Amino acid sequence: MIAVFGHRNPDTDAIASAMVYASLLSRQGVEAQAYRLGELNFETSYVLRELGLEAPDLLPELKAGTQVALVDHNESAQSAANLAELAVTRVVDHHKLGDLVTSDPPFLRFEPVGCTSTILLKLFREANLAVEPQDAKLMLSAILSDTLHFRSPTTTPDDRMAVEFLAPIAGIEDVEAYALAMFAAKSDLGDTPAAQLLKMDYKVFPFGDPAQRWGIGVIETTNPAYVFGRKAELLQAMDEARAEGGLNGVLLSVVDILNETNRTFILSATEHRVVQEAFGVETVDGVADLGDRISRKKQIVPALEAYFASGT
Amino acid sequence: MIAVFGHRNPDTDAIASAMVYASLLSRQGVEAQAYRLGELNFETSYVLRELGLEAPDLLPELKAGTQVALVDHNESAQSAANLAELAVTRVVDHHKLGDLVTSDPPFLRFEPVGCTSTILLKLFREANLAVEPQDAKLMLSAILSDTLHFRSPTTTPDDRMAVEFLAPIAGIEDVEAYALAMFAAKSDLGDTPAAQLLKMDYKVFPFGDPAQRWGIGVIETTNPAYVFGRKAELLQAMDEARAEGGLNGVLLSVVDILNETNRTFILSATEHRVVQEAFGVETVDGVADLGDRISRKKQIVPALEAYFASGT
Repeated sequence: MIAVFGHRNPDTDAIASAMVYASLLSRQGVEAQAYRLGELNFETSYVLRELGLEAPDLLPELKAGTQVALVDHNESAQSAANLAELAVTRVVDHHKLGDLVTSDPPFLRFEPVGCTSTILLKLFREANLAVEPQDAKLMLSAILSDTLHFRSPTTTPDDRMAVEFLAPIAGIEDVEAYALAMFAAKSDLGDTPAAQLLKMDYKVFPFGDPAQRWGIGVIETTNPAYVFGRKAELLQAMDEARAEGGLNGVLLSVVDILNETNRTFILSATEHRVVQEAFGVETVDGVADLGDRISRKKQIVPALEAYFASGT
Repeated sequence: MIAVFGHRNPDTDAIASAMVYASLLSRQGVEAQAYRLGELNFETSYVLRELGLEAPDLLPELKAGTQVALVDHNESAQSAANLAELAVTRVVDHHKLGDLVTSDPPFLRFEPVGCTSTILLKLFREANLAVEPQDAKLMLSAILSDTLHFRSPTTTPDDRMAVEFLAPIAGIEDVEAYALAMFAAKSDLGDTPAAQLLKMDYKVFPFGDPAQRWGIGVIETTNPAYVFGRKAELLQAMDEARAEGGLNGVLLSVVDILNETNRTFILSATEHRVVQEAFGVETVDGVADLGDRISRKKQIVPALEAYFASGT
């Protein structure tokens, strides 16, 4: 039995890809079970509710040597706590390669596309396996989520082709309407505590050498006014996250999905200076307007990497 | 332009896969050029002579940031000297994942099969590209070489199927005879200096933490008597390699291809003790009989890794 899971603070791709990859492996005769590394966000809950599916179980503590398959991540900081003791035999991912090492030749499939599920669809087609409606809807949801329905600069022609292929199998006639419903569900944050909002889509990145560690959260929403209404609480949650994590800095980007803008909450003078020098952007009232840089992976992290690599 | 290359001390797979992957990328509209990181062995020279092909050029010093594609290796110790400064955008490999990191999402294709060329054939077929006879013969040669014509325990059904698919395209009616001719060419070592014999198929591996560094050479031959006739010279070359490389140990395995045996030259008390404890094998007259452990990747390196990881 191989345990399949995506990153901590799972998003729709992390959950959907784990479920679909486990399904693909099972159909190829490899016993596999999908797990999650945290609570579902509102978008993912909506997708699973639409499908009448339960969420995967939380990953239990795995014994050293257990075979695992990673989807949608590969860095230990985003993975199971005892990843170094586990046997990573498979990874399907669309992120840069971090600190992963393996003790045996693995199966790795990385492509610079917008979503892990886009790669999974290729695996189905290469294996000449028909895609079931449930898997199709999971993959399609993940692609719409990761690419913000093709708005993100991470979008590739492969992602568009995958959605075109999957929509009829998933029984989705109006992809635009389905995407808006997903984004509305994601934006319906209600009385979610600020600390939870911050951590909903939050990753810790090492930058520079010796490494600084920065926490970067993203809230993708169709209702930025709601998030700005909770700015004071969120800044406090960021301050606590920085202290608890022993981090050098914390940023929280509020991405307006429909207008494709990123306004980032700035915690203190350190973040102010780094954002000023890395992006050439000023902070006003604790907010830096990062314009159309809506992709953390493609537009935020690389700029910070370049800034810290320059030895400043 | 992307530079494509295999590991140092190239074998047939390292050269053939670089040439074939460059050919595949070019046909997919990606400008690519194959290079080599060292001198060809006699088997690879034979294969290229049979095809009427020149060897790829030696890799020149590449400017920082140059895009490169790695085949048949991924660890920096086996790659271009300034790999850390280069932009690794693609890797096709069948080894364990070592110290590779990337700054952007790469294209990675790793599978636990016997030969990189087996994976390359899949890439051709997934792209619906017909394989040209020259590429077919290069891939087939690499697979026969890496798997010792299916004798090695690294052989998988995919490798066998690839050879079956490629042989008619390559115009090779008698695969067995062609493999024997390749192995005979490889074994015709003539008056090659001992230092060069040692380094012909030689890799440095880190073991344990803090890492020890061991050099492990393999001579695959149909004529082991010839190699044993040069044992004294080879032991001296091993001694020099250990000193020059600042290595903790050096081993040289003489693999009898046809009889599928491995007798390994043992340099000093250190190697004696490690081989005794890792494999339970005694050294007699400077030679440890490792039986049918003919795969460095699958049978030698993992045992040494386990031994050093146990903290001894």
